[in-house]
Amino acid sequence: MPEAAAIRATIDTYLAAFTAGHREAWLDLFAEGATMEDPVGSPIKHGREEIGAFYDQGHASADSVELRPVGPVIVIGDQSSFLFEVRPVLGGAELVMPAIDVMTFDEDARITSQRAFVDFAMLVPAE
Amino acid sequence: MPEAAAIRATIDTYLAAFTAGHREAWLDLFAEGATMEDPVGSPIKHGREEIGAFYDQGHASADSVELRPVGPVIVIGDQSSFLFEVRPVLGGAELVMPAIDVMTFDEDARITSQRAFVDFAMLVPAE
Repeated sequence: MPEAAAIRATIDTYLAAFTAGHREAWLDLFAEGATMEDPVGSPIKHGREEIGAFYDQGHASADSVELRPVGPVIVIGDQSSFLFEVRPVLGGAELVMPAIDVMTFDEDARITSQRAFVDFAMLVPAE
Repeated sequence: MPEAAAIRATIDTYLAAFTAGHREAWLDLFAEGATMEDPVGSPIKHGREEIGAFYDQGHASADSVELRPVGPVIVIGDQSSFLFEVRPVLGGAELVMPAIDVMTFDEDARITSQRAFVDFAMLVPAE
């Protein structure tokens, strides 16, 4: 079982590396064969190549995207769920919507599965 | 597919009826054969009788328990995840911890599955 602190460190890096545009560091957080369902209900992506394509699409669709930790991060055993904000800048305007991710982790606190609850209808101008 | 508004109404009642002690109204929110994993990692409960026993245990373990909506409630299709606070009163003292529930719903917006992310180590005195 991974340590809760190691899972929290993975989640911190997950948000920070995506925001900073550190593609390889972000992809290194995922275990081999990891799955991603982002958003929930969309086709499941498998492995580094498909998850990397998701990363590229996310960054190409906006001037920049900040994933801002707002908490809480709740860790139980090898699983976690946490709240954060997605803050894309589109045409110079900063928008914001809430997101809740649900993840599982391997022994090394690498992500084995990710599911993201986001509703694009909740995207509003950031204050 | 249930309407998002109907799912939101179910979640509102889920929090309010538990807090108010309306046991049967709360249990009526679950579909027949619904599953509950609360907290995540614990044995899965099946159906009204086992879920009712969970309700009874929750109410017996504290003077009172408020489930306070703090949002966001994110609905996608027939699924939702939402943040709320668990506020038990124990020996006259009010405590608080965050919780994130993940649920699926049937056509009538009844709960078909519930998973609850809570970490009792996060339970602190309410301010």
